[in-house]
Amino acid sequence: MQRSRQRVTLITLGVRNMDRARAFYEGWGWSSHASSLPTLTLYQMHGAALALFDRDALAEDQAVAPDTLGTGAATLAQNCEDRAEVDAVFAAALDAGGTARKPPKEVFWGGYSGYFADPDGHVWEVAHNPYWPLAEDGSLTLPVPDAQAG
Amino acid sequence: MQRSRQRVTLITLGVRNMDRARAFYEGWGWSSHASSLPTLTLYQMHGAALALFDRDALAEDQAVAPDTLGTGAATLAQNCEDRAEVDAVFAAALDAGGTARKPPKEVFWGGYSGYFADPDGHVWEVAHNPYWPLAEDGSLTLPVPDAQAG
Repeated sequence: MQRSRQRVTLITLGVRNMDRARAFYEGWGWSSHASSLPTLTLYQMHGAALALFDRDALAEDQAVAPDTLGTGAATLAQNCEDRAEVDAVFAAALDAGGTARKPPKEVFWGGYSGYFADPDGHVWEVAHNPYWPLAEDGSLTLPVPDAQAG
Repeated sequence: MQRSRQRVTLITLGVRNMDRARAFYEGWGWSSHASSLPTLTLYQMHGAALALFDRDALAEDQAVAPDTLGTGAATLAQNCEDRAEVDAVFAAALDAGGTARKPPKEVFWGGYSGYFADPDGHVWEVAHNPYWPLAEDGSLTLPVPDAQAG
């Protein structure tokens, strides 16, 4: 069975106030990516991305109440090549002792994703995002929206 | 003033039982790096590393009580070129609205490091580790211990 590749392609930080959080990261020196949305601020890093996302929406995405997020208020994501890989990597996590928060399923943004917690409660997302192709080395470079490309 | 580079070079997950945590990640498909120690398990990723570290020790390193770690039970670290850059990047975080947990200082493992929390309580470490040189592109490749190098 296919197991997990050794990578984090996206770190998501749940935030209570997007304007405040964005102001902090911009003030610290970070520039948001052109593909950011009002509800999702993205930053390109070295072969991976950091995201700011509404904390309550992050809890809903994990199918837990916001006050039980725990360390899941920051999640590590592993992007996969396709849905079959998501299913395999997710199953491997449960076999290894992880606890499912939300089994992989289609999600509103057009991808396929599940969440599990490791034995210490650290929360991972395993996802396929058809809009975020991975490089051959597994790294993620955020695509620039069409309207702004060229 | 120098501000933050747009990178995470190390993700540290606080764990209550190292054997259990290591068994989970190995079972999931990850191979620990040769430079791992009994108290610190390291995994090489794409230009960055993931670490498992005792949760209580992580709290002590942040100068907080373990039961007040919050999302700081998982920390994001940015490695810098030297101590002066650590000081500048740390000061820039406070100027931008971050809250100091521990101002940068020499630490037991031979480096120099401080911790702050962003406006939502997400905890960052800013560190210089003389044993972990960064590549020109800012990526981190864990060095192999001398005894095991070829």
